[in-house]
Amino acid sequence: MPSDPFNARQIAIAGVGLIGGSIAAALKQRGYPGIIVGVGRSEAKLRDIQAAGLIDEFTTDAAAGAKLSDLIIFCTPVDHIVEGILAAARASRPGTLITDAGSVKGPICEPLRGQLPEGVAFIGSHPLAGSEKQGYEHADADLFVGRTCVLTPDADAPHEQIARLRAFWESLGFAAVLEMSPEHHDNVIARTSHLPHAVAAALALAVSGPEERQMAATGFRDTTRIASGDPDLWAAILLENAGPIGAALDNFAGRLEELRGAIAQHDAARLKNLLQLAKTNRDRIA
Amino acid sequence: MPSDPFNARQIAIAGVGLIGGSIAAALKQRGYPGIIVGVGRSEAKLRDIQAAGLIDEFTTDAAAGAKLSDLIIFCTPVDHIVEGILAAARASRPGTLITDAGSVKGPICEPLRGQLPEGVAFIGSHPLAGSEKQGYEHADADLFVGRTCVLTPDADAPHEQIARLRAFWESLGFAAVLEMSPEHHDNVIARTSHLPHAVAAALALAVSGPEERQMAATGFRDTTRIASGDPDLWAAILLENAGPIGAALDNFAGRLEELRGAIAQHDAARLKNLLQLAKTNRDRIA
Repeated sequence: MPSDPFNARQIAIAGVGLIGGSIAAALKQRGYPGIIVGVGRSEAKLRDIQAAGLIDEFTTDAAAGAKLSDLIIFCTPVDHIVEGILAAARASRPGTLITDAGSVKGPICEPLRGQLPEGVAFIGSHPLAGSEKQGYEHADADLFVGRTCVLTPDADAPHEQIARLRAFWESLGFAAVLEMSPEHHDNVIARTSHLPHAVAAALALAVSGPEERQMAATGFRDTTRIASGDPDLWAAILLENAGPIGAALDNFAGRLEELRGAIAQHDAARLKNLLQLAKTNRDRIA
Repeated sequence: MPSDPFNARQIAIAGVGLIGGSIAAALKQRGYPGIIVGVGRSEAKLRDIQAAGLIDEFTTDAAAGAKLSDLIIFCTPVDHIVEGILAAARASRPGTLITDAGSVKGPICEPLRGQLPEGVAFIGSHPLAGSEKQGYEHADADLFVGRTCVLTPDADAPHEQIARLRAFWESLGFAAVLEMSPEHHDNVIARTSHLPHAVAAALALAVSGPEERQMAATGFRDTTRIASGDPDLWAAILLENAGPIGAALDNFAGRLEELRGAIAQHDAARLKNLLQLAKTNRDRIA
């Protein structure tokens, strides 16, 4: 990446946690030649992140961070992204590209539509990678390798900015960069990410005694791993995407009821058929 | 283990798949000095297992396998264990200890109560270890290291046989060997193993399109991993433990409904509280 394909001499990352830190680590490892500026609220923490070698400079002043940057990526909690982008956009020069890494797209893209200064572009992103861990300490330069990133450009988004953003994510290792509407993204991700999170949390809530903990084998551990995620971050995500999640929960409840009916009625043929379908679906992902 | 603490010159393993094969591998690796006999239906497959070094001898005649063995372990599908044990017990000498590795205990222990020849003991076991993989090809000598094994002895089970069985599982690497009633086991395991399986299968059923597969990140992969398990084996397990699983599903549905209500009502405080409780429960397991 010595001459970066996304044309940015300075990149600002607002919110240098697991995702923001991994973006910085991936840029550094791949030889990004420009300056990486970390933007956050805690100067002490930003200093640690700089000492860890993830960022070159830092600021607690979002406008200052935006002013000299060609590309700005918001990795803050989903319920803080819109206000952060509006503030940064006001300080940005024409030609600046702003994106985010939020797990919901409609509630971010809709309020920003038509609200940015002339020449400043916002295009939503959702890098589909993560971990139940949080914090820049777990930043991983290869977190995105082989993964999928979704872009949700508005109909009037400049083509060259979409191309820049695509080149940016691809340079970090993503195997696929998809484009779709924010609404479509939110419906699909409700089923593939938010629903599993709610389900894992409900399972973890349902198994609470010391004996149950001792008798929880690898299956239970895997199935509930994501329930260790940060409650504040996930509450914000689930609330921002409440509508699609409700529909996903309905669909899930229907499938679970089918399994339950087959078990209760001792219908071995139907139960095997359902489990085989589930296995086929799952094996296609692996 | 040069002089084995469970006093068995010959061990028969009926059903040499992932669990039976891993028991054999663990015995071999830990220097078990006696003979391991594989019992199965397919001579060709048993020959392969012998060639892989897991077993010393094999037979397709369950009575012949039982006749000279001091310890017999049934690792067959749960709906075939009772009939297999009754056949083996008829051919066994007094002093023989028979156990199983089934994921349900009541439907195995109850029908066997009082049905075995004088001097032949059956004590149910459930080694809490496994994988979505199957077959002796995935046998792992360390599959049981650090895990928990449950024994469900009847009230009149000879103490020396319980001690032998405990010594046997401990010698394979289990960190804890618990004793409880078959009914209690089935209730707890319904929540910690069978419920997660049904939930993972329902999630895998709910996400079926090619775009959803592409947008399924690590969270979805982990949460549904066990849905790749063998449909026939799991249908048998779920049907054998239908009652406790129904109760576990009720409990789970209640927890999921709490989460759903908090999301639908945009009650951030309640949602964070539930997610925090789930995280606390889950973190205690890890």
